[in-house]
Amino acid sequence: MSAAQKVDVFRVPCDGPADLSGVQALVDAGRLDPRQIIAVMGKTEGNGCVNDHTRDFAATAWCHFLAPHLDCTAAQVHGRVALVMSGGTEGVLSPHFTVFARGPAGAAEATHEKRLVVGVAHTRDFAPEELGRMAQVEATAEAVKAAMRDAGIEDAADVHFVQVKCPLLTSAKVRAAQQSGAATVSRDTYESMGWSRGASALGVGLALGEFAAVDEAAILHDGTLYSARASCSAGIELDGNVVIVLGEAAGSASRFRIAHTVMQDAIDGNSVRRMLRERFGLDPEADADLVADRLVNLLAKAEASPGGLVREARHTMLNDSDIHSTRHARAAVGGVLASVVGSTALYVSGGAEHQGPPGGGPVAAIFAIPSF
Amino acid sequence: MSAAQKVDVFRVPCDGPADLSGVQALVDAGRLDPRQIIAVMGKTEGNGCVNDHTRDFAATAWCHFLAPHLDCTAAQVHGRVALVMSGGTEGVLSPHFTVFARGPAGAAEATHEKRLVVGVAHTRDFAPEELGRMAQVEATAEAVKAAMRDAGIEDAADVHFVQVKCPLLTSAKVRAAQQSGAATVSRDTYESMGWSRGASALGVGLALGEFAAVDEAAILHDGTLYSARASCSAGIELDGNVVIVLGEAAGSASRFRIAHTVMQDAIDGNSVRRMLRERFGLDPEADADLVADRLVNLLAKAEASPGGLVREARHTMLNDSDIHSTRHARAAVGGVLASVVGSTALYVSGGAEHQGPPGGGPVAAIFAIPSF
Amino acid sequence: MSAAQKVDVFRVPCDGPADLSGVQALVDAGRLDPRQIIAVMGKTEGNGCVNDHTRDFAATAWCHFLAPHLDCTAAQVHGRVALVMSGGTEGVLSPHFTVFARGPAGAAEATHEKRLVVGVAHTRDFAPEELGRMAQVEATAEAVKAAMRDAGIEDAADVHFVQVKCPLLTSAKVRAAQQSGAATVSRDTYESMGWSRGASALGVGLALGEFAAVDEAAILHDGTLYSARASCSAGIELDGNVVIVLGEAAGSASRFRIAHTVMQDAIDGNSVRRMLRERFGLDPEADADLVADRLVNLLAKAEASPGGLVREARHTMLNDSDIHSTRHARAAVGGVLASVVGSTALYVSGGAEHQGPPGGGPVAAIFAIPSF
Amino acid sequence: MSAAQKVDVFRVPCDGPADLSGVQALVDAGRLDPRQIIAVMGKTEGNGCVNDHTRDFAATAWCHFLAPHLDCTAAQVHGRVALVMSGGTEGVLSPHFTVFARGPAGAAEATHEKRLVVGVAHTRDFAPEELGRMAQVEATAEAVKAAMRDAGIEDAADVHFVQVKCPLLTSAKVRAAQQSGAATVSRDTYESMGWSRGASALGVGLALGEFAAVDEAAILHDGTLYSARASCSAGIELDGNVVIVLGEAAGSASRFRIAHTVMQDAIDGNSVRRMLRERFGLDPEADADLVADRLVNLLAKAEASPGGLVREARHTMLNDSDIHSTRHARAAVGGVLASVVGSTALYVSGGAEHQGPPGGGPVAAIFAIPSF
Repeated sequence: MSAAQKVDVFRVPCDGPADLSGVQALVDAGRLDPRQIIAVMGKTEGNGCVNDHTRDFAATAWCHFLAPHLDCTAAQVHGRVALVMSGGTEGVLSPHFTVFARGPAGAAEATHEKRLVVGVAHTRDFAPEELGRMAQVEATAEAVKAAMRDAGIEDAADVHFVQVKCPLLTSAKVRAAQQSGAATVSRDTYESMGWSRGASALGVGLALGEFAAVDEAAILHDGTLYSARASCSAGIELDGNVVIVLGEAAGSASRFRIAHTVMQDAIDGNSVRRMLRERFGLDPEADADLVADRLVNLLAKAEASPGGLVREARHTMLNDSDIHSTRHARAAVGGVLASVVGSTALYVSGGAEHQGPPGGGPVAAIFAIPSF
Repeated sequence: MSAAQKVDVFRVPCDGPADLSGVQALVDAGRLDPRQIIAVMGKTEGNGCVNDHTRDFAATAWCHFLAPHLDCTAAQVHGRVALVMSGGTEGVLSPHFTVFARGPAGAAEATHEKRLVVGVAHTRDFAPEELGRMAQVEATAEAVKAAMRDAGIEDAADVHFVQVKCPLLTSAKVRAAQQSGAATVSRDTYESMGWSRGASALGVGLALGEFAAVDEAAILHDGTLYSARASCSAGIELDGNVVIVLGEAAGSASRFRIAHTVMQDAIDGNSVRRMLRERFGLDPEADADLVADRLVNLLAKAEASPGGLVREARHTMLNDSDIHSTRHARAAVGGVLASVVGSTALYVSGGAEHQGPPGGGPVAAIFAIPSF
Repeated sequence: MSAAQKVDVFRVPCDGPADLSGVQALVDAGRLDPRQIIAVMGKTEGNGCVNDHTRDFAATAWCHFLAPHLDCTAAQVHGRVALVMSGGTEGVLSPHFTVFARGPAGAAEATHEKRLVVGVAHTRDFAPEELGRMAQVEATAEAVKAAMRDAGIEDAADVHFVQVKCPLLTSAKVRAAQQSGAATVSRDTYESMGWSRGASALGVGLALGEFAAVDEAAILHDGTLYSARASCSAGIELDGNVVIVLGEAAGSASRFRIAHTVMQDAIDGNSVRRMLRERFGLDPEADADLVADRLVNLLAKAEASPGGLVREARHTMLNDSDIHSTRHARAAVGGVLASVVGSTALYVSGGAEHQGPPGGGPVAAIFAIPSF
Repeated sequence: MSAAQKVDVFRVPCDGPADLSGVQALVDAGRLDPRQIIAVMGKTEGNGCVNDHTRDFAATAWCHFLAPHLDCTAAQVHGRVALVMSGGTEGVLSPHFTVFARGPAGAAEATHEKRLVVGVAHTRDFAPEELGRMAQVEATAEAVKAAMRDAGIEDAADVHFVQVKCPLLTSAKVRAAQQSGAATVSRDTYESMGWSRGASALGVGLALGEFAAVDEAAILHDGTLYSARASCSAGIELDGNVVIVLGEAAGSASRFRIAHTVMQDAIDGNSVRRMLRERFGLDPEADADLVADRLVNLLAKAEASPGGLVREARHTMLNDSDIHSTRHARAAVGGVLASVVGSTALYVSGGAEHQGPPGGGPVAAIFAIPSF
């Protein structure tokens, strides 16, 4: 990717998983060229777990929407645009799509300051028994590096968020593996989502140099090994990983900046408050209106503290057989973050294995630059 | 109640609905005289809806615990101590009991400053068809006034929180009413909880002079009519309302203060931040350690905005047939409040009909006075 | 419709809400002409309640599948084919589509015996405040008569099943009605599904002469008023009712027969056993293989007994705030019916207001005729 | 136990987990001597999974009820009476208790025919890391043999049902094991229930000679290894296994008989129909009234077929992240069995690892002898 890229980002609300009327309106208004869309990060209103068909429903709607613009079939869109749908809008969270469009910038537009850039890459498809193991870690690390090149980022320090969409094990995949004599990392479909996210996150951290090496035994076992910038979502609708790198580079013509922090636990809103003050010069309380005005989105991971405690007090998320812990965690962290920025259409994704410290998670913020 | 009352408040964690080992430890340490306990507000880990048996389980455990101290049967304890169990510890919320004990104070102990006082009263039992109607509104208003007298509060402005426990309609009660020719306000057990809470809250507001009159047609219909200090929980285990008034009076010997505010919507943490600064002189960020040290508990109501929007963005809580909206709301608001005070064992109760503005809710804070 | 119609019925399993590979295989094999499809009754694997997006996902997949065959847009397919998706495959139930195709029969093919015929009709769109009221009852009754004519059925006794798909109230519709000054029958989205189903079922019974008149006050209140042949499903994806009449007529060239019975309660498998013996000459135990061979599908309604009892014993379905009663009922009745016919891909639909007696429901069976 | 035992069995409905008014009525009527109660098998109305507190609530109520009769503390009752509470009354299932009382019989009462006998035994408490492993298998096998001796059964062929209540891993137990350097079989609390049930069932089969040996690697992996008479429920409220053996012996003075069969899959009602005809001489359809009259209870296990199929058709129970598969399975099998015997207060328990073939499960029937 040449340095003179220009990235546009739109946060578009929707009335249901397949509602793209807001996107169509942007296209109709001439604000968005659908041919320049390279990635979509959606929050859809399903349960975010194994049988969340709203993710597939939304992705399918995007395929049908983009196909005529890209002059390909609906099925082929998946190979052209990174469609990452994260299920679960518990609590106050509001379903929406974050749409990244990338196009060439005129030389005059490029700035010497660091500005938002985006890159995308895919791994190969994985065999069921590779999920949650080193094969997935290593392939993800390679894809992150490819996506950095695609974004025009040279220094890993300029990467602020890496979104990975990764597969899960369905009952059918587990059966297939068993019949071929291979042992999957788990036979439980829900549990497999955690393995796939964890291995993918370790791949991100490896690529960004957040740690030097990963041992297979560390996956889902060594909580001290984590990426501060990885966000991984598992979905039933794909067989390989899709990687989106969000960062900054000088020479971009984008009118956005991005920064990141890490919530140390599920109620650590103060880390986000500090980031807003220190990186964007905005105080969440005093500048509440400016924050609401300029915020494009927060991108965050949430999970129930695996030790069963938040600040020494017991939580009940992991013992709840009626509501999965990922749903609890999104609802709680969604409330925390929404109270900081005054907005509920946030990308809060569940299951933060090796994504931030145990019980915490990475948070990135994309803001528009006021002078634009 | 004579003015020279001394109120102690303890927030006690538990390992399950019936775990009173923490309470026993306070008794064993001589810090709590079980005969002085007049009210318990528990957060138990059930679903907080119709079939939440953890409330009854916890209340029963309290009855068996207190009976020998009160020299009565377990069943008789209900008539002696106000046991209010609110189900639902979604998200980060941590199950616990807030125990109020009241005893006489020595003359030397009493202070001229306003300090925490507590009062309790009961209504008569209601017929199924009275729930959610004026009969419940009016009986509750009378009970609030009785509880104020019991607390030694003369000015309604000194009341900061009124906790009501009220009945719901079970299938059996609906059938009984139908057989007797009476029409209940709803035949849906879950929905009846809202009617009972709403009518009770209007009774509180009436007693406190927050509005001059209530019309039966306003119940659950006129969202502009609300109390800023009512908190109502419906439970399967009782047939009348129990009312606990929390406020302040001069001449009390308590070492606690109480204040209240209103969250305007589910993410309005800023109102709580302001209350901490203005009423207790503590900044949630700068004084985080002091806040955590001195906080006894936040008492709050949460609900899904009935209009389907939070700050103009759609939420999905009211259309979710897998998780009731009260559960979503507790998880979200629990996250918001925990991020303000750095503690998760908070009393966040769901279903805020006429308790605060639509989508928002009252929040009271009990803090220990540092000089003690 | 001329009498010489020929109806084909296929029960097609699917791997997910949008999986039409089985249908494509029938088309590829020359067994099904997609242009002749007039109705599809699907069981999809969502929760069957308000936020079940699998119904819309499946219907959308059908639209994209049929559009090129019908030479119209995907959106226009809804006006050409009756797509009825019923959510919820709890317990052993298996997701599938029942596809009805209708074409002209050669004169030589027509038989003088009664054979399966199908007819379809639509009502106009309803205003939110018309749902669950007489407007919906009456419009449905008219549509049933229109569908009978379309099927070539003259005698209402020859109608064995009437499937209605009807709208529900979303939060948005309730708000819209309120803003226009109109009062909807309920403000609860889940509850509105029952009102819409109930009013539609009464419309069916009225059209079939099962009772002479309906009073608006009877809707959801008078359980003695019911149709033995109505099956109504509410869905978020439409604004009017779609009606499919299944019955028999002489002169049809179909190779199927249909019959119906009524389960008196949720465990009344014996009524279905008797129907198999008396109407199809098959004993469920002795002829188990023949039953499995010839069965096309059972079409049934299920509900939790509104009185809270099954054969004098208490059930807990109506007090369960974790799982909606319709889900419980489908799981239980699905088990009962599957144990009778030895097959789990059955059309068991929840919410049987005025569809069979309280707690029971209509069951129709479509069997292939062995001589064909 | 001398051969001249007399066993009484009562199936008692309840209005809630702690409602023992029906039991009290039996005592008041002189029909049940509470001092003779040796075992209670309850179906309570919780979710039957990790956070089902209704089991503990019911057991606690039984402890408080029995303590004065047994002249011990409530806590000591657990060591005196086998209290097995199985959560989950999905679908039509009705909450109830099956109460076994055993007393000495006069010589004249004893019969030479085989009649119902009951025996009880306990294992030692298990360390967290022993659950789901050979230690639990072997200790259970020993306890089964001890319970057979207690029941006066010499031939394993006379054992028709073995109920085991076994522990599960809570988050706290997993943490404790990790801190002591021991690895538990799973870190997932819900999954641990399956491991504990599976190991216990293999212990039963070993004791009854249903297979000659068990290898630790077979636990939860070799579905061909199963007991046709084991029923295991996991609960949070105990640390060792409790074993209840139900069988027949000559010389008993009981007025009941017991038999068992195996459902080959979740819809195999026909096996139960055959058992009723062959073992009790009752046809489920023709003798429906006699069946309802004489039935004491069916005791059955249910599970979602681990292969994802029932009779070659896909089920969705294992991919459902909203409702656990054990809940689906109880609802479906409860419907199947209730339709056979015309009664819904049945003991259908979820999670049938190594209890019957994969997807199927053991079913025992206790019937009163008409001549009594």
